[in-house]
Amino acid sequence: MQEFLAKAKSSMQVIATLDGKRKNKILNQMADAIVEQSAYIVNENQKDMQAGQENRLDSALLDRLLLDEKRVWAIAQSLREIAALKEPVGRVLEGWVNEENIRIEKVSVPIGVVGVIYESRPNVTSDVAGLCFKSGNVAILKGGKEAEQSNRAIAKILQSVLIKNDLPKEIISLLPDSSREGVAKLIKEDQYVDLIVPRGGEGLIRYISQNASVPVVKHDKGLCHTYIHAHADPKKAISIALNAKCQRPGVCNAMETLLVDRSIAKEILPSLYKAFVDAGTKLRGCSRTREVIFIDLATDEHYRTEYLANQLNLKVVDGVDQAIAHIAEYGSGHSEAIITENYTVAEKFMNAVDAACVYVNASTRFTDGGMFGFGAEVGISTNKLHARGPMGINELTTYKFKLYGNGQIRQ
Amino acid sequence: MQEFLAKAKSSMQVIATLDGKRKNKILNQMADAIVEQSAYIVNENQKDMQAGQENRLDSALLDRLLLDEKRVWAIAQSLREIAALKEPVGRVLEGWVNEENIRIEKVSVPIGVVGVIYESRPNVTSDVAGLCFKSGNVAILKGGKEAEQSNRAIAKILQSVLIKNDLPKEIISLLPDSSREGVAKLIKEDQYVDLIVPRGGEGLIRYISQNASVPVVKHDKGLCHTYIHAHADPKKAISIALNAKCQRPGVCNAMETLLVDRSIAKEILPSLYKAFVDAGTKLRGCSRTREVIFIDLATDEHYRTEYLANQLNLKVVDGVDQAIAHIAEYGSGHSEAIITENYTVAEKFMNAVDAACVYVNASTRFTDGGMFGFGAEVGISTNKLHARGPMGINELTTYKFKLYGNGQIRQ
Repeated sequence: MQEFLAKAKSSMQVIATLDGKRKNKILNQMADAIVEQSAYIVNENQKDMQAGQENRLDSALLDRLLLDEKRVWAIAQSLREIAALKEPVGRVLEGWVNEENIRIEKVSVPIGVVGVIYESRPNVTSDVAGLCFKSGNVAILKGGKEAEQSNRAIAKILQSVLIKNDLPKEIISLLPDSSREGVAKLIKEDQYVDLIVPRGGEGLIRYISQNASVPVVKHDKGLCHTYIHAHADPKKAISIALNAKCQRPGVCNAMETLLVDRSIAKEILPSLYKAFVDAGTKLRGCSRTREVIFIDLATDEHYRTEYLANQLNLKVVDGVDQAIAHIAEYGSGHSEAIITENYTVAEKFMNAVDAACVYVNASTRFTDGGMFGFGAEVGISTNKLHARGPMGINELTTYKFKLYGNGQIRQ
Repeated sequence: MQEFLAKAKSSMQVIATLDGKRKNKILNQMADAIVEQSAYIVNENQKDMQAGQENRLDSALLDRLLLDEKRVWAIAQSLREIAALKEPVGRVLEGWVNEENIRIEKVSVPIGVVGVIYESRPNVTSDVAGLCFKSGNVAILKGGKEAEQSNRAIAKILQSVLIKNDLPKEIISLLPDSSREGVAKLIKEDQYVDLIVPRGGEGLIRYISQNASVPVVKHDKGLCHTYIHAHADPKKAISIALNAKCQRPGVCNAMETLLVDRSIAKEILPSLYKAFVDAGTKLRGCSRTREVIFIDLATDEHYRTEYLANQLNLKVVDGVDQAIAHIAEYGSGHSEAIITENYTVAEKFMNAVDAACVYVNASTRFTDGGMFGFGAEVGISTNKLHARGPMGINELTTYKFKLYGNGQIRQ
């Protein structure tokens, strides 16, 4: 492991100083190689699929695992899209001349060695590898066990392109020891690794946050709320609430609890009930909700649950302050929305709620790199530091200060 | 502890949403209170001084610990300067309209609860408290044991101003359990604390980096180099090298090793020798240096030592590539300089060296918030993420995305 990490670190400078034109050419070569060897990838993926069936993975998981020709083509396409992104390294973020006439530039630079730990979908392997490569970082990838053969095949093809270009293959590699112990070791190696990005279940992320000495940008759960204020446009409110819950219930930016202002509860709850029941949503609610519509009781535990399913809690609140307080208590700081036509209330909510993304009159489902216009995304960070919310390729860079002098010494 | 942290966290929203005018008024009141109660502070400080003398602290440490009327006045002045800084919260860092016509703004917001762990100088207590307050953060401060009475006196005065303004006193507080166990507990409480900033000895920082589950922005050692290239202007080279080492040897941005290009070693080493000996610098060098000037041998261990004293290693290198390689091996990623008139070599060095600050033709002593024009500084970060290099008040903020919609739902 130590030897592997030393090699990864020593290849850092090679990739960090590669010019954009060359990086893009190589990314396109990688895309070509993926397409050329699609039969090989599909074949290796079949081994994972077979093992998955033997291990009785559920059908949703098996579907996410599957690679057919079309999905392999999409993997290649994604690499071409990464090649087409604007160069993330060398952006001058700020620049000024100080009192001593030293010109100071704050410039974006690669982070260094980035370890990404993720689950199931094998396309993440090439997406993350491509994003790290384009941003000048060394990538150490640790995918899910269930996708091991698929991930190996993809990594092997990407590495063959590196080798053909006389670059160290360690610029992109799978973690050699993919066991729990391997991960435990990796997250402690702050001499070699500059950043760990865990994407996966709550347990994994908790474990990594608690045990890493390498800095972590985590992609944790989304426990998102929408609050329908007294002065909400009811049509917008129902359409946004329905979208936030039902358009894709299994994702982190989907809503889990809908807060309804007391003053409009009697009017709007029946329409909401009808809309959600039509959409097959399992509803639970507080006692005040249940005075209006007939649904199961929501307990404190329900308010703390990220369903990732077509289930929703309803809660009647006395006003914006109680909505803000509920979100502060139960929210995960991911995405929170208010529906209102009232300017002052909207401003209050947007300022007081502490979350990566706060919305007025739109669905929380827009918390997404693609929807933000970032292109391919690393994920959605629930960190407060370094990267918060949708994490695009620019968030795979840090900065350094360049100081241009003319003989200046400090007095 | 848990109860204290819960109170600290619950005061987060109060300070986060306070407007700038009110924050500045309170900061100036704090400055007034410090001046009014200077006799009390000096008196409490005397207790620390007495204990320090009994514990035989060295005279440099005792000098850093001492507070007289003039220094208390400087503490107050520093609070007034923080009040005068530009408001760090609510800056629109980026803004655009996405394809769905949602207006997206990336806006600076306070980080939340910030724990700062530092040593000896009691003025840090009020500086850090003031910077956290101005940036809308709750500050939990843990100063050195030797300054305990002084820190308590200062914190008490600042808290009395908070109370007078009907604000929770937990917005600024000393860590109640200031023992090692208290710190060990604090750095694990990621439910309550958003950031730990350790400033102090290597041991402390290592311990915190290894054991914290709260994100850490560390202020670690500076092992800084200056490389005199073949095409350096010798006058600039000598003046900058002397300044980088001797102007204040005990600080993190002072130089520890001077790299001299082989092609000018014979010419320049004798002048460097004279300049440094005149400045009282203890010199060590590699075997090639010692062919030219008569000094002690520098071992690998010397190259790895942050002297924080008027001592310097000299090393002859074959060219810019070897200089870059030496810095990659021995540098701490703090501040690195090249002295050259050659454009291409300068560019190469500035791009290839991985450090917070890279210089051409200036002294590394400029790595400093004040010299950068940031005003009061939190410190100099050796993190790669969130804040790198001089850390001003803006680095005590993070960001959130505000999304302004008009009923948008995701298709």
